[in-house]
Amino acid sequence: MEPNASNSVQPDHFLEITPMEVHKVVPPPHRSTIQKLKSRLKETFFPDDPLRQFKGQPLGKKWILAAQYFFPILQWGPNYSFNLFKSDIVSGLTIASLAIPQGISYAKLASLPPIVGLYSSFVPPLVYAVLGSSRDLAVGPVSIASLILGSMLKQEVSPTNDPLLFLQLAFSSTFFAGLFQASLGFLRLGFIIDFLSKATLIGFMAGAAIIVSLQQLKSLLGITHFTKQMELVPVLSSVFHNTKEWSWQTVLMGFCFLVFLLLARHVSMKKPKLFWVSAGAPLASVILSTILVFAFKAQRHGISVIGKLQEGLNPPSWNMLHFHGSYLGLVVKTGLVTGIISLTEGIAVGRTFAALKNYQVDGNKEMMAIGLMNVIGSSTSCYVTTGAFSRSAVNHNAGAKTAVSNIIMSVTVMVTLLFLMPLFQYTPNVVLGAIIVTAVIGLIDIPAACQIWKIDKFDFVVMLCAFFGVIFVSVQDGLAIAVGISIFKILLQVTRPKTLVLGNIPGTDIFRNLHHYKEAMRIPGFLILSIEAPINFANTTYLKERILRWIDEYETEEDTKRQSSIHFLILDLSAVSSIDTSGVSLLKDLKKALENTGAELVLVNPVGEVLEKLQRADDVRDVMSPDALYLTVGEAVAALSSTVKGRSSSHV
Amino acid sequence: MEPNASNSVQPDHFLEITPMEVHKVVPPPHRSTIQKLKSRLKETFFPDDPLRQFKGQPLGKKWILAAQYFFPILQWGPNYSFNLFKSDIVSGLTIASLAIPQGISYAKLASLPPIVGLYSSFVPPLVYAVLGSSRDLAVGPVSIASLILGSMLKQEVSPTNDPLLFLQLAFSSTFFAGLFQASLGFLRLGFIIDFLSKATLIGFMAGAAIIVSLQQLKSLLGITHFTKQMELVPVLSSVFHNTKEWSWQTVLMGFCFLVFLLLARHVSMKKPKLFWVSAGAPLASVILSTILVFAFKAQRHGISVIGKLQEGLNPPSWNMLHFHGSYLGLVVKTGLVTGIISLTEGIAVGRTFAALKNYQVDGNKEMMAIGLMNVIGSSTSCYVTTGAFSRSAVNHNAGAKTAVSNIIMSVTVMVTLLFLMPLFQYTPNVVLGAIIVTAVIGLIDIPAACQIWKIDKFDFVVMLCAFFGVIFVSVQDGLAIAVGISIFKILLQVTRPKTLVLGNIPGTDIFRNLHHYKEAMRIPGFLILSIEAPINFANTTYLKERILRWIDEYETEEDTKRQSSIHFLILDLSAVSSIDTSGVSLLKDLKKALENTGAELVLVNPVGEVLEKLQRADDVRDVMSPDALYLTVGEAVAALSSTVKGRSSSHV
Repeated sequence: MEPNASNSVQPDHFLEITPMEVHKVVPPPHRSTIQKLKSRLKETFFPDDPLRQFKGQPLGKKWILAAQYFFPILQWGPNYSFNLFKSDIVSGLTIASLAIPQGISYAKLASLPPIVGLYSSFVPPLVYAVLGSSRDLAVGPVSIASLILGSMLKQEVSPTNDPLLFLQLAFSSTFFAGLFQASLGFLRLGFIIDFLSKATLIGFMAGAAIIVSLQQLKSLLGITHFTKQMELVPVLSSVFHNTKEWSWQTVLMGFCFLVFLLLARHVSMKKPKLFWVSAGAPLASVILSTILVFAFKAQRHGISVIGKLQEGLNPPSWNMLHFHGSYLGLVVKTGLVTGIISLTEGIAVGRTFAALKNYQVDGNKEMMAIGLMNVIGSSTSCYVTTGAFSRSAVNHNAGAKTAVSNIIMSVTVMVTLLFLMPLFQYTPNVVLGAIIVTAVIGLIDIPAACQIWKIDKFDFVVMLCAFFGVIFVSVQDGLAIAVGISIFKILLQVTRPKTLVLGNIPGTDIFRNLHHYKEAMRIPGFLILSIEAPINFANTTYLKERILRWIDEYETEEDTKRQSSIHFLILDLSAVSSIDTSGVSLLKDLKKALENTGAELVLVNPVGEVLEKLQRADDVRDVMSPDALYLTVGEAVAALSSTVKGRSSSHV
Repeated sequence: MEPNASNSVQPDHFLEITPMEVHKVVPPPHRSTIQKLKSRLKETFFPDDPLRQFKGQPLGKKWILAAQYFFPILQWGPNYSFNLFKSDIVSGLTIASLAIPQGISYAKLASLPPIVGLYSSFVPPLVYAVLGSSRDLAVGPVSIASLILGSMLKQEVSPTNDPLLFLQLAFSSTFFAGLFQASLGFLRLGFIIDFLSKATLIGFMAGAAIIVSLQQLKSLLGITHFTKQMELVPVLSSVFHNTKEWSWQTVLMGFCFLVFLLLARHVSMKKPKLFWVSAGAPLASVILSTILVFAFKAQRHGISVIGKLQEGLNPPSWNMLHFHGSYLGLVVKTGLVTGIISLTEGIAVGRTFAALKNYQVDGNKEMMAIGLMNVIGSSTSCYVTTGAFSRSAVNHNAGAKTAVSNIIMSVTVMVTLLFLMPLFQYTPNVVLGAIIVTAVIGLIDIPAACQIWKIDKFDFVVMLCAFFGVIFVSVQDGLAIAVGISIFKILLQVTRPKTLVLGNIPGTDIFRNLHHYKEAMRIPGFLILSIEAPINFANTTYLKERILRWIDEYETEEDTKRQSSIHFLILDLSAVSSIDTSGVSLLKDLKKALENTGAELVLVNPVGEVLEKLQRADDVRDVMSPDALYLTVGEAVAALSSTVKGRSSSHV
């Protein structure tokens, strides 16, 4: 826009195209404080309105709905058919073939006896089948929670010197993890897991996958004296200081099975129809390797094997739980961390597959189901379990229709526990290592990392912090650092809200950011700002400084060009979703500061809550004049520009 | 609005009144990542653009400006005139008459030797006069910082058993307080003090005033065996368990002087012109009471007096600072808490009077000035000082024009230190107690508390938490609780952003909240939502659930009335000031979920940053179709309503 001889052309021009009546800003319909509190609490804790279906139902129906709400099995059970069963039995057997070797491997990852992994694949799936609302979740031990459980407990108790105490602490941690998960769900505080952002999780998972894989070097290389630490540096130094312990038979066997498993995984990833290749490969490897060891008596040639396993179902373990004593703090902390990590995985998996099949999963209810499953598990010799991503994917691909596939898996594990345990006596540890490595490699999601880099550099930094924190510091600290940075970013965003300078798009009454839409034009005498965030104590000081700087910049820029100073500061409050007492003071201060320079403060479109609070201020006129309140920026400019014209000409 | 026979009437009607061309949403002008990072950092750390004045100046001028920036005395010094000096000398002497008794009293409040209070009123004001940019701030010890310093140090070291160590720790804490304050300013992290909201401060101040007053019961009642605790309950029980120690002479004297001081305060509050009444009253009380004690030998009748004070200026104390040893943690913590509290008071006072006289105070620069003042103070036998609210108000009322009034005060204190110290030997402690009570009573701001109750109930709760926390738990814990709750509220706001359902105001192309503006009407086939916050990892889950519920509610409500389902979900993103990778996924998921039901996602007015991030998504079409992007809701509805009409009639 060129400077004009007469500076009043533009408002005139603007007026021509918008011959408008002015709409009044009215306060929202009155609601009492109690009503407001009620609706606020509802939005905060019941955003999904779980009681919606109960409305207007007769009492009997309400009871049935309530029972179905707490036990989803009552919802789908009655309609269960033979066709569904056919699908479920295939998928159940498929995940069982995966669950048995993984259960044994993950228990070893947590430094627990291998059989605990099988116990944990028997009871929890049954509980989940009754309480859970996801149809695809395959329940059992998972790699990351196993890793964290083991590494946190190992800091204070040695699993080799005091295996019984270690086991007791593991069950106690599981109890507290379950209690914590169920409470989160019951108290509707599920949003706490949202603070683990996707970027954090991707970095964390990749780091954990590397830590887990490094731990497998012990069994893959056949090392007997291995460090007890988890981080990259001590593990690698331990590996290369013990090269004499490497056993070529173990390395060869490990390498062959690793290649076989990775190939199987590759095939299934290329052709999802061939999901059974990767699903069956671990069990096939276990069987094949066991036969090999048995045939060649390989355990005498330096290949370590699992050894004798106890037969029989889960023994009760509620008498092993520690509710007091010196380890209570450790157990509660471990329960908290493993609980939140496994909950995050379980909920994310449930939501992913629910979205694929277009049904709803109630996050808070799922938390209660998973929590209860762990509480029951902790008293039946199970450690922390959740919905595992890889097994759930196999379950989904194998055509699972309902939670019955979990029951099938559980029954298969039961049969194994009762009759097949002697078969595992000669299973070499190296194959278990290869199975774990293959499973966790899928957690390193490089395309997602690239995508994050492309979209948001800050998220990428958070991801790197989680990744390097896990690798070089420790699993739980890496996670804490990443969460801390994410929350700091949110607070920084709140402290430094955006203010946009709006200009008019010629020929319309649309006002948009001057620095974005080049065709948008300033209107002389007006400074139009849009505040893009709630105004609260944390940002009033900034906003005041920033707005005063906008005024200052406007005056120095404009004065030289057009000899016009600000007559009106229009604040578009459409995006200010709430305000507190500091915010009200800010507007008061701004109004006073403007009056000193002879300008006027005009507010546009405050939302209901903001308008109410402004009107409740001690002296409303200190904050806003009733005639300086408009519904749209366009109407404000149209109504006020005649005044500007008057003032400008009197200046000349 | 009544149900219509034909559901296409409204879009038609809407089209009639807005014969519009459609404006394109364009990406903002290109800027590189470095440029963006630069401007983001500038907005975050330099919102007030302190280097603005340097732009386009010759080098010599730049040097002068820089010197003036760091030493504001160079700015106003050259223009200093005799007229200004006349004003400053009056105000300087006035605040000196207040500073001397208050200095002695506050040092006793901090359990330090009374003379340290005078030392602290000599050096720091001189430093501030050179470095500070406020013209009204009267610098010296303040009640709350003194209270906190004393109470935190007393937890580990007894001031009576080991007075030298206690003094060393006080100076060391002052050093760390100053270091912390200066670093906050230097690193431009001044916004950290913004997290102490006005509501928190009002509650905290009132609580601290009560705690301070309770402590004065010791000297006001003449009790010799007083509790060392600070909280309400132990202090009151200590007072009433020692009724035998009450001395009627002390009580009588205390009562008389308290009434006198409160009356003087009342007079000055009613008539600000008589500011000198309350300003002079403390010194008058000290002189009068000293004469009384001296004349009647009252110290022999149970009235305790200050006793002999050392003469002479501040001795150096840099050799008394503790930088290691077992008390380092205590000293750093005490420094942090007193530093942030005294900084908050100093900055708030500076800003208040700057706003009254319409000049600017640079918060970060002030922090450096106050910090440096405390660092220098800690090596010249001073404890934590800042700009005191009550004394600054007197300074302002007495007509202070520049920081020279601080110099005058300092010189007066110097004369006192050199020559007048013997006069204080017979000053009774009870008068000092009365002076403190009178000073802190002004910190209880009941009208402000009422105002907060009226405007924002949540802020009121925060205020109460701070108040009761300070009274019943401890000064620092009360503060921590209130800050924690304030931050939790912000996080909750971020986690649960508002979504508004918009409707058209008939006869216009304005769209406003349906639940606020009763005349606003839904447009059949459209669900128009406005998201009122940045979209990030902490709220995507909630937003998804909430939006899906809006859709669900729309369909159940509308279906019965008008047999129309949603054809378009319009998301007004004007208020979404930023988005992260989770937010991009949310839009992707929403688009997919809508496509399953045959509806389409339309985005309106994404701001520059958001638009860029959406376009950088892997496959843009997954997130938004280029033809489903509009500049205003009105244009989107106008352009799309013909489609709805077509679809609806084909449904029939």
